[in-house]
Amino acid sequence: MESIRIFSPASVANISCGFDVLGLALETIGDFMTVIKVPEPGVRITRITGQKLPLEAKKNVAGVAALALLDKFEFEGGFEIEIEKRIKPGSGIGSSAASASGAVWAINELLGHPFSKLELVEFAMEGERLASGAAHADNVAPALFGGFTLVRSYEPLDIIRIPAPEDLFATVVHPLIEIKTADSRKILKTSITLADGIKQWGNLGGLVAGLYTKDYGLIGRSLVDHIIEPTRSILIPGFDEVKRAALNAGALGCGISGSGPSIFALSKGETIAKQTAAVMKEIYGGLEIDYDVHVSNINPYGIKEIY
Amino acid sequence: MESIRIFSPASVANISCGFDVLGLALETIGDFMTVIKVPEPGVRITRITGQKLPLEAKKNVAGVAALALLDKFEFEGGFEIEIEKRIKPGSGIGSSAASASGAVWAINELLGHPFSKLELVEFAMEGERLASGAAHADNVAPALFGGFTLVRSYEPLDIIRIPAPEDLFATVVHPLIEIKTADSRKILKTSITLADGIKQWGNLGGLVAGLYTKDYGLIGRSLVDHIIEPTRSILIPGFDEVKRAALNAGALGCGISGSGPSIFALSKGETIAKQTAAVMKEIYGGLEIDYDVHVSNINPYGIKEIY
Repeated sequence: MESIRIFSPASVANISCGFDVLGLALETIGDFMTVIKVPEPGVRITRITGQKLPLEAKKNVAGVAALALLDKFEFEGGFEIEIEKRIKPGSGIGSSAASASGAVWAINELLGHPFSKLELVEFAMEGERLASGAAHADNVAPALFGGFTLVRSYEPLDIIRIPAPEDLFATVVHPLIEIKTADSRKILKTSITLADGIKQWGNLGGLVAGLYTKDYGLIGRSLVDHIIEPTRSILIPGFDEVKRAALNAGALGCGISGSGPSIFALSKGETIAKQTAAVMKEIYGGLEIDYDVHVSNINPYGIKEIY
Repeated sequence: MESIRIFSPASVANISCGFDVLGLALETIGDFMTVIKVPEPGVRITRITGQKLPLEAKKNVAGVAALALLDKFEFEGGFEIEIEKRIKPGSGIGSSAASASGAVWAINELLGHPFSKLELVEFAMEGERLASGAAHADNVAPALFGGFTLVRSYEPLDIIRIPAPEDLFATVVHPLIEIKTADSRKILKTSITLADGIKQWGNLGGLVAGLYTKDYGLIGRSLVDHIIEPTRSILIPGFDEVKRAALNAGALGCGISGSGPSIFALSKGETIAKQTAAVMKEIYGGLEIDYDVHVSNINPYGIKEIY
């Protein structure tokens, strides 16, 4: 195989009680990429459409991830990458993760699968380091594995893929405002009460149990965040209204996607997910804030080849 | 039915990363109780063997739990309770929980099941309140439900039963020393770092996933406690040695049972669980500290009638 065209999904990280550990892959929004094996060594980003992003490989998350992979593999040639960005950077649904993961997944295909998915996560995390200063795995893991992913530990890296119940749908609204990642981080406290911690891990245990047993009620009861949401949601206009309306529309739960500003909701069935989208639109329409809305099943496989 | 004889199991609470939320029921150690329906109203503890404990119903955990149940049920008669204590109070394996749960379970049988297991947990928690000042559910839940139980939330009370893989065995060593519960609580910090919290809920998610998928390796990797064990283990002589030896003997993980002084280990298969018991004995023998050791499968049903 000399070239491959792929779809790399957007993802929701920091799922309520799963701050920094639990993410999920979306299916209806993601980047398209074409990667070509060429005789010339190195990595070149030949074209980016949809967004203005650096073409220089060392300054582009896909380039950096690809270079991290090639650093661990003896190969005389190189790769050219074209990126059709569909995910807006800064939206909070894993834009950089999709490009970084897509690059390494595609190259691994073209090289005949020398690396495991877990190793690909590590390469893609180098792209995340470029994007945000921290090599986190909570968006690249769902992009690469699909379903829900739990980053149990970083040292060593340990990722558990948790299958999503088939009827689970995500609604994501992206209010088109800018939150500086630095602000979103600064607002977090470095310590929490033990009592809040206990509630959080009780809920995470409940959420994982609900996913395995397809217990939508339990999933809903567990989608609670006592720690991050109360402070971070202040930065997102309309958050409380959107959440209230989503739950009233029948969503199982609702919270901040990644570090925002996107807000996600999970629902049983596409109908409720669409109704949730409708109330989200109504609220941001009323607030005169532009927005994008996505309704998606949970992507079961992650990145895929497009024919 | 006018009388019933039951077995009510000991239990391990605070399972490593599951502080305050995750417990499991044992099978080879527990209290035996006989409960008799009588015409005279009220609850009488007629006999306790094995331990010196108060016979007055209002001062006995089983009596208090039974009275909490009868407070919610119109019944003209009463109950007599005989308790054969096999679990030592203060051991950290749910001694008071076994008696309290056993009493309400047995009375519920004799009354024709007016209450759900969740309601029985609430009655039994009143016994726990008498025993320790706090109406916690982390031992009464596994005693009543069997398997592993996750107390997802207290308000409202939400308990999730998680089945244990069949090959999972527990080893529990009880060094016969006294730790005052007050000391064991006092040593806990009321706040934790967010970073430690994230590790803890990552591990709890991993443990729950491992139990559902019968992934013993994942169960083992997740049996880590970054928060409570480092401080509480100081109160248990030999803890570090016992833990090291248990892991060397092949146990998947090892930690403090409840608030101690008992130490539990989980293993794949009875052979390793017995080898773990052997090294535990060796260490407490060397330290000249008396001990009890139990090896048990995970009790799948909780309290049961004995014929």
